[in-house]
Amino acid sequence: MKLPETTFPVLWLYGLSGAGKTTMAKGLQLHFRNAGIPVVILDGDELREGLNKSLGFTQEDRRENIRRTAEIASVLSKQGIFVITALITPLEEHRQLAREIIGAERLLDVFVDCPFDVCEYRDVKGLYAKARKKEISSFTGIGSSFDTPADPFLHLTTHEHTREECLQTLIQVVTPLLNTPTVFTNAQLLQA
Amino acid sequence: MKLPETTFPVLWLYGLSGAGKTTMAKGLQLHFRNAGIPVVILDGDELREGLNKSLGFTQEDRRENIRRTAEIASVLSKQGIFVITALITPLEEHRQLAREIIGAERLLDVFVDCPFDVCEYRDVKGLYAKARKKEISSFTGIGSSFDTPADPFLHLTTHEHTREECLQTLIQVVTPLLNTPTVFTNAQLLQA
Repeated sequence: MKLPETTFPVLWLYGLSGAGKTTMAKGLQLHFRNAGIPVVILDGDELREGLNKSLGFTQEDRRENIRRTAEIASVLSKQGIFVITALITPLEEHRQLAREIIGAERLLDVFVDCPFDVCEYRDVKGLYAKARKKEISSFTGIGSSFDTPADPFLHLTTHEHTREECLQTLIQVVTPLLNTPTVFTNAQLLQA
Repeated sequence: MKLPETTFPVLWLYGLSGAGKTTMAKGLQLHFRNAGIPVVILDGDELREGLNKSLGFTQEDRRENIRRTAEIASVLSKQGIFVITALITPLEEHRQLAREIIGAERLLDVFVDCPFDVCEYRDVKGLYAKARKKEISSFTGIGSSFDTPADPFLHLTTHEHTREECLQTLIQVVTPLLNTPTVFTNAQLLQA
């Protein structure tokens, strides 16, 4: 993959709640920042507290949530920021929407895969318990579906590998795709 | 002003269409990028083509446009990105909203000031002519008001100074407020 000099790809991490998306994103951010690459996480949970706080979990709102995130990722990556997203992105049509907005050649989609049972057992945020008690409706995996992707750019199984192993895999795959422009010219900026 | 080590301020450029907001933003981005600072422009015109494309120019939509931009700026600046916005931000209540979301201590509001007549004469994008012919409704300065700020962080008059002079003023004022963290620790990232 050959990218224009000032454009980074977007790493789109998706999977069930509790599968490890945010953990992966934070580990990668630390690594790439220290390598001198400007990197930003767009985390679904965090965006829902601010930018997307008027959005709920209907199909329409989930789609709008993903559309907005993809639009921001696109703007940032064109300005030389490496964007990592962490959103459930439950349906194939959501991933397709992100691909259309960002550009198929720039979107690296990573399926952060962990079986439903394991995510429910971990239940880091207590959301699975709430969904079982019907305190949350339209929870992905309970009352709202998740499409297993057919052919992701990368398929990580977080129940079969340690956090460190998963991070190393990601770093090895992503690093060659990042170039590190240090000096920008006016021409490059106007192009961006 | 003392900022936490991984947080940059947000430079909020506002003023009439054609006053020079985007020009200033692009010049600053070039300067600070080459100084090794990760910097992003959130430009109102560009965001209206993607993130905000369903928003029009009613008071409600203008407010939502500013709310979303401020929320994104907040997320990015907390992750060590220097954000420069370029939005008309016509009303004092809009600037107040941005201040509430970003934090008064982190928002540097810069009034990019140029008299209405001069902006109309420049009419870089042909928008003033369209507004006069009523092809655009609710155009700031023609049918939609602009509050002159009482006490901006910085007041630039782009009709009285050259582009280069304005940029130098901005660079001199902003540079001491930017620290340049190069190595992040886990503790700092978790705090962010």
